Amino acid sequence: MKTLPLPKGFSAAGIAAGIKKKKNKDMALIVSEVPAVSAAVFTTNQIKAAPVNWGIQVVEHVGARAIVVNSGNANACTGPQGIADTEATAVLTADHLGAKPEHIFVCSTGTIGKPLPMDKIGAGVETLFKNLSPENGMDAAEAMMTTDLVSKSMTVEIEIGGKPVRITGLAKGSGMIEPGMATMLAFILTDANVEKHALQCALRFATDTSFNRISVDGDQSTNDTVIALANGAAGNEVLTQDSEDWNLFLQPLEKMLFELAMMIVKDGEGATKVITVRVLGAASDGEADEAARAVANSMLNKTAWAGNRPNWGRIMDAIGYSHAQVQEDLVDITYDAAPAVRGGMAFLETPEEDLIKVVSQEAFTIHINLNLGDGEAVVYTCNCTEEYVRINVE
Amino acid sequence: MKTLPLPKGFSAAGIAAGIKKKKNKDMALIVSEVPAVSAAVFTTNQIKAAPVNWGIQVVEHVGARAIVVNSGNANACTGPQGIADTEATAVLTADHLGAKPEHIFVCSTGTIGKPLPMDKIGAGVETLFKNLSPENGMDAAEAMMTTDLVSKSMTVEIEIGGKPVRITGLAKGSGMIEPGMATMLAFILTDANVEKHALQCALRFATDTSFNRISVDGDQSTNDTVIALANGAAGNEVLTQDSEDWNLFLQPLEKMLFELAMMIVKDGEGATKVITVRVLGAASDGEADEAARAVANSMLNKTAWAGNRPNWGRIMDAIGYSHAQVQEDLVDITYDAAPAVRGGMAFLETPEEDLIKVVSQEAFTIHINLNLGDGEAVVYTCNCTEEYVRINVE
Repeated sequence: MKTLPLPKGFSAAGIAAGIKKKKNKDMALIVSEVPAVSAAVFTTNQIKAAPVNWGIQVVEHVGARAIVVNSGNANACTGPQGIADTEATAVLTADHLGAKPEHIFVCSTGTIGKPLPMDKIGAGVETLFKNLSPENGMDAAEAMMTTDLVSKSMTVEIEIGGKPVRITGLAKGSGMIEPGMATMLAFILTDANVEKHALQCALRFATDTSFNRISVDGDQSTNDTVIALANGAAGNEVLTQDSEDWNLFLQPLEKMLFELAMMIVKDGEGATKVITVRVLGAASDGEADEAARAVANSMLNKTAWAGNRPNWGRIMDAIGYSHAQVQEDLVDITYDAAPAVRGGMAFLETPEEDLIKVVSQEAFTIHINLNLGDGEAVVYTCNCTEEYVRINVE
Repeated sequence: MKTLPLPKGFSAAGIAAGIKKKKNKDMALIVSEVPAVSAAVFTTNQIKAAPVNWGIQVVEHVGARAIVVNSGNANACTGPQGIADTEATAVLTADHLGAKPEHIFVCSTGTIGKPLPMDKIGAGVETLFKNLSPENGMDAAEAMMTTDLVSKSMTVEIEIGGKPVRITGLAKGSGMIEPGMATMLAFILTDANVEKHALQCALRFATDTSFNRISVDGDQSTNDTVIALANGAAGNEVLTQDSEDWNLFLQPLEKMLFELAMMIVKDGEGATKVITVRVLGAASDGEADEAARAVANSMLNKTAWAGNRPNWGRIMDAIGYSHAQVQEDLVDITYDAAPAVRGGMAFLETPEEDLIKVVSQEAFTIHINLNLGDGEAVVYTCNCTEEYVRINVE
């Protein structure tokens, strides 16, 4: 059994509280021994689950102590009762820690519109505290899973100002195939000593170049949440954006979020491939993003890739209906290193077999150059197989 | 064998010219004996197939004589050669009729990016003229099909100013499941005598309330085309928008386009159900449309419907991430007549079985009331089964 080393001063637990019909783990707890600096990024969906609305308040307070999570029930569209249930969960958890409820993040993921089974949640919190240990990070990562096939977590160790520092990330998410409404949750724990504003900026920046690149943000679920807790237990001098050592912290954080995001794409429901869609030469970065998302989110592209078919016509079609400005006879498309389209037409010197070879791989890049300007963007996506439909039909 | 009565002065043909690998019919011809008034609506995709660019010019000329169609090859992204091939097809057809090329519409549907096999097209045009007959409308409808399972055509007979008038519609389209990039083609033929501007307005209006309601317009293919030809052979007094009899013509035209659009949705790739998504109470009609399309285009909704699962949470999620303004606690959702959501929460008095019964039908309506204003919109969509992915992977 793999273990997940946690940063100093953090402990975790993951247990089966009976919320899921199958008796899988469905509650997780992450605790910081001491009050931690917190930062968070939440869904932009106008319909926000009760725990998201709760979290938006918690992150405004100084000194977060814990994150309590349940899978199997999203506690979304549950009205005032849902808000009361989230708060009750926070109160139960806070009481164990001698903390205030506003220091407890609550996260839920699963079915929308059903009331939380508070008897199970209550008993679950008790069991979580009994199982709390610096050794149980993996259990927590497992308890966050819904349709995920694998749990997603990692720890890096760095040194800042002569002090060893750990950063741990735990994530869940699988229904990332567009429209990716299944919940994405990610928790970043570190014993680094970081100023609150700097942590929020770092988390926002790293989220924009990772989770927000896997086409989650446009269609975020009611529950999507990324939370960072920094408890300072490493004893380094407090990090701000002006610190000489800032990049020593920011870079591994960014890398970790990117790797967690890639784990989510790879574990896309029914997915077997990771496709990088890179757009260059757009009129602006925003338009490059529009074009890249249109290609990455096209079901016709996703299914063509599943069938090992290059089918660049579907890519031309997608950029054509995207909101990016496109001039047909300027478009170049390259599959990894193989030119497929030049000047809007088939590049006949590349044999079809070469393109098939590229899209038959488990990972490949579609380079699209609109040759209009300097705008660029990249989006990571996955293919769509019958398995995706099977998962979502059942 | 069903026949398709054509309006006076029209004849048609549909043959196998060898463009498709399978030996199905793949070329169609529709001819008006006399110059006809024409109107057309084309794809809004920035990347337009050669025949679309050609048609945009043809419709500006007075006196259209024919529509020549091939399936199996879209003649899109084919550069100057594609344009030359379209023009050559028009010239070949015009020569047979003693007409000018600018009086010949050309339509192509099929694979993007491959040059038209002009030897087969040339021989095909010859064979089409040999088979031209007022009896062969059904052949033409069949020759337009790509992944369509059934051909789509109908004729209505009306009386205008004491004269019998026919309107015939032929359509193709199947890959309508979002993003619906597969080509939609529809041809409306009538022997009514109609002024050109009035015909264009009528076609635009009828398209907006039919084909553009099945979520085609946002993501139109490179080839989408609707053409109307009115040859005046019925001998009625010329119809304008001011004519007393205008509605006698407009209403059946509108009804026909709607029915053809419904045939396309029903024949959606792998689809087994038609779902009407009706949004009321939005801040504006435009916002109602945004919300309805978000719901109708959500793969999670389409797959839930395939699985006979009400899953209204996915509907709440979709309207929440749509660009329509939404206030969670005002949202009401009703499945046919069964209330599912009231004030953003489950309406518990409706048993789950009642909702399951609704979504298990072959056709049902999701009513969404945002209770914010007077905006409304309706979108017709279909469910998504594994078959959809199978078709598009293969």
